[in-house]
Amino acid sequence: MVAFGGNALLRAGQKGTYAEQLANVEEACRCLLPLLEQGCGLVIGHGNGPQVGNALLRHEAGSAQFGLEAMPMDFCGAETQGSIAYLIETAMERVLLRAGLDRRVVSLVTRVEVAADDPAFEKPSKPVGPYYAEKPGDGATYREDPAGRGWRKVVASPKPLAISNIDLIERLAREGNIVVAVGGGGIPVVAGREGRSGVEAVIDKDLACAVAAVKMKADEFYILTDVPKVYVDFRKPGERALDTMSLADAQQYLADGQFAEGSMAPKVRAGITFVQNCGGECIITEAGQLGNPSCGTRITK
Amino acid sequence: MVAFGGNALLRAGQKGTYAEQLANVEEACRCLLPLLEQGCGLVIGHGNGPQVGNALLRHEAGSAQFGLEAMPMDFCGAETQGSIAYLIETAMERVLLRAGLDRRVVSLVTRVEVAADDPAFEKPSKPVGPYYAEKPGDGATYREDPAGRGWRKVVASPKPLAISNIDLIERLAREGNIVVAVGGGGIPVVAGREGRSGVEAVIDKDLACAVAAVKMKADEFYILTDVPKVYVDFRKPGERALDTMSLADAQQYLADGQFAEGSMAPKVRAGITFVQNCGGECIITEAGQLGNPSCGTRITK
Repeated sequence: MVAFGGNALLRAGQKGTYAEQLANVEEACRCLLPLLEQGCGLVIGHGNGPQVGNALLRHEAGSAQFGLEAMPMDFCGAETQGSIAYLIETAMERVLLRAGLDRRVVSLVTRVEVAADDPAFEKPSKPVGPYYAEKPGDGATYREDPAGRGWRKVVASPKPLAISNIDLIERLAREGNIVVAVGGGGIPVVAGREGRSGVEAVIDKDLACAVAAVKMKADEFYILTDVPKVYVDFRKPGERALDTMSLADAQQYLADGQFAEGSMAPKVRAGITFVQNCGGECIITEAGQLGNPSCGTRITK
Repeated sequence: MVAFGGNALLRAGQKGTYAEQLANVEEACRCLLPLLEQGCGLVIGHGNGPQVGNALLRHEAGSAQFGLEAMPMDFCGAETQGSIAYLIETAMERVLLRAGLDRRVVSLVTRVEVAADDPAFEKPSKPVGPYYAEKPGDGATYREDPAGRGWRKVVASPKPLAISNIDLIERLAREGNIVVAVGGGGIPVVAGREGRSGVEAVIDKDLACAVAAVKMKADEFYILTDVPKVYVDFRKPGERALDTMSLADAQQYLADGQFAEGSMAPKVRAGITFVQNCGGECIITEAGQLGNPSCGTRITK
């Protein structure tokens, strides 16, 4: 199981043209070649932070300019699963063709179940979508930007419990296919008597991928980010890159506040979730390092 | 194989709220129960005309209001595959739950290959996206609206040649799963030395579903529309509903101009494609009729 950051696909500082996005995705896919050449099945999960942010803005603008209905977050998340999977399929096929590898790429729309009574719903914390000059009166939670840019919706980030069709995702990967799934951490749904319904929330994609990896009993779980290793005392005197972390070390470092929230901390937590519940190792690294056998920081039992 | 119209999901006259769209999709899914109760595997293809139209408008508005990149049609089509599949999964699960049926619903992003030298690219004919006051100078083909609403992009409607992952779609359906695929007629791609690349085009969804149905050797191919049967002399004196049409009849009626282009004609052509190349029958009808054994118009060899 490999988790890509949404920022690897749509980069800060770029305009985000189609050509740029496809080139970014292709570079990311090329980095997976060392894994593919070993012949292993692969599930690719990916973030969608910048993409779903843009989708929400487009829905807002479409409503203002053309009177179209602005759809909620789960719908926008589903849109990004379609478009990002399409870019990954296109880019991955090119990479495979060039490398002379014959592998199928298949992308599944993925819903991820969360608990309706997850405590995260009591204190929404993830800012999403556009800034508003005045606080909208639609019953959602809004928070005023400290920098004065206006009001912005905040949504909950509940814990992923179950990944839809995970048994099928596993089967397809074990058959040697490259499966794109759990995009953006999955479309969040809650179970009810009528079935499962979408909710406005953001599921941490590394944690959702960890839950998927546990369920599939993945051999290895790669969390790809923009640094080659995990650091302690990051950007401080005595900064130190870690080659390995035991579960106990990882938990201690987290407790000591060594890892930034919204950045390395959730990745390490996702790694712990995987290693604790599964026999395999979690490797946190940057995509370009994957060809190097001693790449990244390994979280081990 | 069942092909749903995009209009069945996002109806003219409705505002297109989330609740409305989900209710429409649920009604459409409920209509499929008679097929599901027979225990057959099912592939659901769907149109995306109104949805991709809205996506293009949202991208245009997002560009004007927020300076976001307006993405091309293939990207927008991929977005609608994600969002419509998500609505179908949600609605279908509710319908299955209520009916006490235990079936998996799985949705695949689907690319559909067209020929780079398809003659349709020489004469683009499908109007898509927003109207512009002046003809944009981006090299695409634009046509001035006769009603004076401005300039609008026209794209080609090339013939679908091959459906990505169709063998997998077939396998999943034959295992009893409900597979959502070929959304919007598929994301159009052309093969090149570097791999397959997206093109701005619209593939007729009934024809793409017919090609999928042929490849899968589907037993039956249902084209769902807003009339219970196919008519000759439609809305004229002597109007007559057809219970069956042989291939020869269908071709003769088409040659006689009995069926409107952009409406019944492409559906009948899709039906002919299926019946000619496959052992099964094509049934053109409205979704609500599916429980009725003598429903619709059957095209037979």
